[in-house]
Amino acid sequence: MTIRIGIMGYGNLGRGVEYAVSQAPDMELSAVFTRRDPKSIKLCSTQAPVLSADTLLGWKDHIDVMILCGGSATDLPEMTPKAARLFHVVDSFDTHARIPEHFHNVNVAATESRHTALISAGWDPGMFSMNRLLADAILPDGASYTFWGKGVSQGHSDAIRRIPGVVDARQYTVPVEENVNRVRNKECPTLTTREKHTRECFVVAEEGADLDAIRQAIVTMPNYFDEYDTTVHFVSLEELRKNHSELPHGGSVLRSGITGWNKEHRHSIEYRLELDSNPEFTGSVLTCCARAVYHMAQRGDFGCKTIFDVPPIDFSPLSRDEMISKML
Amino acid sequence: MTIRIGIMGYGNLGRGVEYAVSQAPDMELSAVFTRRDPKSIKLCSTQAPVLSADTLLGWKDHIDVMILCGGSATDLPEMTPKAARLFHVVDSFDTHARIPEHFHNVNVAATESRHTALISAGWDPGMFSMNRLLADAILPDGASYTFWGKGVSQGHSDAIRRIPGVVDARQYTVPVEENVNRVRNKECPTLTTREKHTRECFVVAEEGADLDAIRQAIVTMPNYFDEYDTTVHFVSLEELRKNHSELPHGGSVLRSGITGWNKEHRHSIEYRLELDSNPEFTGSVLTCCARAVYHMAQRGDFGCKTIFDVPPIDFSPLSRDEMISKML
Repeated sequence: MTIRIGIMGYGNLGRGVEYAVSQAPDMELSAVFTRRDPKSIKLCSTQAPVLSADTLLGWKDHIDVMILCGGSATDLPEMTPKAARLFHVVDSFDTHARIPEHFHNVNVAATESRHTALISAGWDPGMFSMNRLLADAILPDGASYTFWGKGVSQGHSDAIRRIPGVVDARQYTVPVEENVNRVRNKECPTLTTREKHTRECFVVAEEGADLDAIRQAIVTMPNYFDEYDTTVHFVSLEELRKNHSELPHGGSVLRSGITGWNKEHRHSIEYRLELDSNPEFTGSVLTCCARAVYHMAQRGDFGCKTIFDVPPIDFSPLSRDEMISKML
Repeated sequence: MTIRIGIMGYGNLGRGVEYAVSQAPDMELSAVFTRRDPKSIKLCSTQAPVLSADTLLGWKDHIDVMILCGGSATDLPEMTPKAARLFHVVDSFDTHARIPEHFHNVNVAATESRHTALISAGWDPGMFSMNRLLADAILPDGASYTFWGKGVSQGHSDAIRRIPGVVDARQYTVPVEENVNRVRNKECPTLTTREKHTRECFVVAEEGADLDAIRQAIVTMPNYFDEYDTTVHFVSLEELRKNHSELPHGGSVLRSGITGWNKEHRHSIEYRLELDSNPEFTGSVLTCCARAVYHMAQRGDFGCKTIFDVPPIDFSPLSRDEMISKML
């Protein structure tokens, strides 16, 4: 039994999914769909056709799970409900405030058409969410923390690029290691935004630009930088391309908690990721989630799901006996 | 809706469960059962009766989930299938080689009597197993490692106590931090048993005992110590009681893996626990698992289960909307 996968959207994330599908023993890539000119796209592998997004309907019976690799701002709110009427789907919708609305829209579409749709998959939201839930359930008396980085925040990099006089920029989110270690040491500190992360920016300025003005515009930018200690380095375009072209990321979900009638025992639970490539790792998680969606759909478990709804067994290509003997 | 919990067996683990149930907003402790004289047992809380294990049958309709806190060597292989004919149950069976046989016996009992039974719960097997499965599924091209400690191994402590001339002993399993860090740094090293853990023993000897003979008996003991670098410290009984009376434990499940068409990106996934009290943390996990068993049973999902079968949502007392808004 081979799970037939479709990819909708072929940017960094779509390429990450393409690679992950090539590594899965139980999957094949059936087609990649794009809203650009299909002829302008060359896949990393050469095993599947690239097709116009307009042809989706014709693939209804030829794809088991469609992995949606669009952006959360404008693509997925429209794309996921629409695709969920034709296919079982997975997306990585990460606009937190709009998740309830997105969940509702996808749930209506998937339920009516008897499809299974898993939204907000990846590592955060995704694996980090699962670990926040589990750690909170295991240690109800405690405090939870999410630290991100060291890694590239694309949203913050984009915000810097919009400042006049900026040619290009890369922003790293850096956890304050001293405070991460306090939580690892089973303390439950109260941490401000500033005490959790710092921000480090590598900026290419136009020739003759006012560097102090750019630095000020960055460090005082509301929501993005004003609540953080931010460092700005001006670099050449060559240096940015040479040293800052990768997309590493990661972080830790931590909970410290207390047990015992005299509150005498402390525990810490940490789930930690260190990723050389954010899009390839996210693509790997989405691919596992596509397997889970396939298994849930086979059981008739339709409607909109999150990672909270998936039994771990559904993520793995192993048989139940193998899992029990090798992993339990 | 309150989940009525029973505890069978009142040792360190039973007390850990008792505490965890007292912290759960959706549970109450209905009764504790023992094979000792119930009058000889005083609970930490005073809210539930202590009863003879012979009276289990009468509680069939008054307990929703029975948490079995016996040992894996002789108690659980008999206790779990028997209890699963009367109740939904959770156990922490950890004799790895016998899990398939135990699974089968419990599955027959639970399926025939329409009960849900979750076996081999806790942190290892348990949360560590879940993380081995998930990391392996996300990064198929990689290597997995489990490091335990620093923590007290009761099996190894018991093995030392059986040596002639030994009054008491405590054995700590210690991970080789240098090699843990190699995996954290995304290497995939091949590690021998000796390269993963060392063993540190604190031993109280009888007056006049041959200390060198005891040390030799420990470090050459097959299976337990011969494949490890082992350090033996002789201490007084007072010192053992003062400095080594707690049961801390923990460890890490780590996987490093590779992605990319040129194998150019490396990732590491770590799940790490640091526990002041192994039995209280294990009791906390079993209590979460009891909640999950209750929810699975409500859905009619009967038979023998492992942690691999549980959707995360079932572990938490939160509503679905709260989970999505607070945790996703």
